[in-house]
Amino acid sequence: MDNDTIVAIATANGIGSIAIIRLSGEKALSIAKTLSKKDNFSPRYATLTNVYDKNNELIDETIIIYFKNPHSFTGEDVVEIQCHGGYIVAQSILQSCLDAGARVANAGEFSKRAFFNGRIDLSEAEAISQLIEAKSEDAAKILAKQVKGSLKEFIESVRDEIIHILAYSEVSIDYAEEDLPEDLVEQIKAKLEALKKQLERTLQASKSRAGLMQGFRVAIVGKPNVGKSSLLNGLLNYNRAIVSDIAGTTRDTIEEQVKIGTHLIRIVDTAGIRDASDEIEKIGIQRSLEAIEQSDIVVSVFDNSRELDEEDKQIISLLEETQKQQIRIKNKIDLETKLNVAFDFDIELNSKDDVTPLIKKLEAIMDRSNSSEEIMLISQRQISAVEETMENIDEAFYPLEDQELEIFSFHLNEAVKAMASITRPFENDEMLDKMFGSFCLGK
Amino acid sequence: MDNDTIVAIATANGIGSIAIIRLSGEKALSIAKTLSKKDNFSPRYATLTNVYDKNNELIDETIIIYFKNPHSFTGEDVVEIQCHGGYIVAQSILQSCLDAGARVANAGEFSKRAFFNGRIDLSEAEAISQLIEAKSEDAAKILAKQVKGSLKEFIESVRDEIIHILAYSEVSIDYAEEDLPEDLVEQIKAKLEALKKQLERTLQASKSRAGLMQGFRVAIVGKPNVGKSSLLNGLLNYNRAIVSDIAGTTRDTIEEQVKIGTHLIRIVDTAGIRDASDEIEKIGIQRSLEAIEQSDIVVSVFDNSRELDEEDKQIISLLEETQKQQIRIKNKIDLETKLNVAFDFDIELNSKDDVTPLIKKLEAIMDRSNSSEEIMLISQRQISAVEETMENIDEAFYPLEDQELEIFSFHLNEAVKAMASITRPFENDEMLDKMFGSFCLGK
Repeated sequence: MDNDTIVAIATANGIGSIAIIRLSGEKALSIAKTLSKKDNFSPRYATLTNVYDKNNELIDETIIIYFKNPHSFTGEDVVEIQCHGGYIVAQSILQSCLDAGARVANAGEFSKRAFFNGRIDLSEAEAISQLIEAKSEDAAKILAKQVKGSLKEFIESVRDEIIHILAYSEVSIDYAEEDLPEDLVEQIKAKLEALKKQLERTLQASKSRAGLMQGFRVAIVGKPNVGKSSLLNGLLNYNRAIVSDIAGTTRDTIEEQVKIGTHLIRIVDTAGIRDASDEIEKIGIQRSLEAIEQSDIVVSVFDNSRELDEEDKQIISLLEETQKQQIRIKNKIDLETKLNVAFDFDIELNSKDDVTPLIKKLEAIMDRSNSSEEIMLISQRQISAVEETMENIDEAFYPLEDQELEIFSFHLNEAVKAMASITRPFENDEMLDKMFGSFCLGK
Repeated sequence: MDNDTIVAIATANGIGSIAIIRLSGEKALSIAKTLSKKDNFSPRYATLTNVYDKNNELIDETIIIYFKNPHSFTGEDVVEIQCHGGYIVAQSILQSCLDAGARVANAGEFSKRAFFNGRIDLSEAEAISQLIEAKSEDAAKILAKQVKGSLKEFIESVRDEIIHILAYSEVSIDYAEEDLPEDLVEQIKAKLEALKKQLERTLQASKSRAGLMQGFRVAIVGKPNVGKSSLLNGLLNYNRAIVSDIAGTTRDTIEEQVKIGTHLIRIVDTAGIRDASDEIEKIGIQRSLEAIEQSDIVVSVFDNSRELDEEDKQIISLLEETQKQQIRIKNKIDLETKLNVAFDFDIELNSKDDVTPLIKKLEAIMDRSNSSEEIMLISQRQISAVEETMENIDEAFYPLEDQELEIFSFHLNEAVKAMASITRPFENDEMLDKMFGSFCLGK
């Protein structure tokens, strides 16, 4: 850890009424004094003051709030400068902070300092990072609790339970040369089984709710000219205000973001799935397959006014192979029905492209994913740690039966370590750099 | 004015570390208490507290700051809630404020309340609005001073000067039935002339620096295949991070925004100017003419490896007709020179598309626009008011000579009114609604 004083714009970039520049480090207060030409700031008091650049020119009238260490987000001296929003003013104040001796913060550096100063643990840091990028209110609620330590409490309860089992087995040392009492072994095994089930449940809930946390991805598939485009446009127009284009993950697929209910979802529009009669069409199918693979929910579209042809059948066979949540749509129902197939989750759309039934169906599927399980693992790092914990619990069973207590003890200690690494790992700079580096700037 | 308590997200929409929700009105404090379940907030003290939704579910850990009336931006009770940034959390807190009795603020409504409560005058309100949208550091500096009342001071000094002249002329009442002393009339006329010149200078400076305030618009013109596109790409790549597409003002022109030096500029790329041999090409020329008209600076591009043809000559004649700032570029100078024409502001570019000389030239032109004149009129409303003031001063000259003092006095009173309207107009709801309605949400 260096002692540099770091600075970043903490609010989103764009037109807004207010922007915040945040400083953290030993020089934060003196930099605030330099910029404002004021002698003193009472901790936590919102002080209205001008700030000036290095040429003594007025930049803006601001509100400065000084958070004295250790009672700040980072645990260091922190200064927040609230100025007028937009693209220019905050940049000018940032520049003045640099001129006065601060340096630009790296991504995640405020959170990293908070971690090293013991203000937050890693599970809380990860929750903060994901809360900012939350894609639904349900996800935000789970994350807000994790910011306040709910995952930490779960981790600690599991760790305590393993330590309790270890202590319980220590009793067996007294039986050193004799056989362990059969019932003691059984009791320990029962405790380990229960713990394993609890971890397994958390792991499964976390995996099945990945869409909730990362934002559901919805793929729209179907052969050309069945009405995919008007369906997509209907979805996008449903809440036009917050539609945004985002870079597609594969070439030639289009991704758009739209809010449905309380969920911010990504819609992946695929090229039409076509008969693979030549190379280009093979690529089209490959692309659709990838879109299905990468999505949480697949919406397939069929033309009610035509009989199923080879292409439709090919699509249906693709859909039957996938385990994803599905919604199948019969389009053009105002025309004469020629499509005599019933799907499990049919929605019938008329040519007016009223997407309301589809919206409702999507919402129902997404809300269902919000199970009552409160504890969620929110990163691959956390999932891997729990998997390592479970592996070590598994490996502790056999030495217990064989009464190789040192090996049993070794694995349970490894399990404790793996579990503890979710909140506070044994120092591993590379892992920490990678984790905090994925945070947004200014956090 | 209604007594509703209003609420809005005050920070820009997007991913950021912190967002701010701002409340103003009688219920602001009680809403903060409801959301946080806390009994009290010390004014101006940054209080760390959880906030909850109407179902008592935790939304986020926030910092709440209460600004007690009248010591707040609006002059009413104001509460700021700082929460984690992103798309979801601030929206959830906004919703909770609505659930607790606030309503969503209209655009500019915070500033409007500040105006009606006498916290800011109209010139300061307009400066705040434009500061947020400032396109350059120079513009931001002028605006920051206007937020602090520099324009108001200028307005008041002009108004005082007119009132002084009026008082001076009152002396003449004593001469009622006699002729006015010749020197008194001359003295009053000299004072009016000086005042008129001062206003004329401010008006001209304001108009010539419109580009500085609104962001310079740069048009790139030239016939097809002279290297316009690679030049444009070079400019855009110069500072890729803050390039953004914006809607073109005319069909078929492309506008892009890029930062050069301290200026955020708009580059308008025109369709090539072509010989008007048919309708389509006439439209092309029309379009280029419009782009030139709408720009502050025109960059024209010519191919050094070919002699001037009819098309080039047509472009040159277009350029000679305009009064805009110009930069003429000889492109492809690594090829044999066939273009034997010297321009005043030549820049030679080789085929590597190094745009540095162009950037420097643009910067020089834009910096030159930042004259030392500190006072600027920043809206059409302000310009119209000064023009009306000047017209009334003009109309006061003749009655003065004819000794029709009541008419003289009438026009100077009108001049005072027009000048005063810049900071505080006689009530005119429609004008106020229109002005504040152009502000961004949350301001």
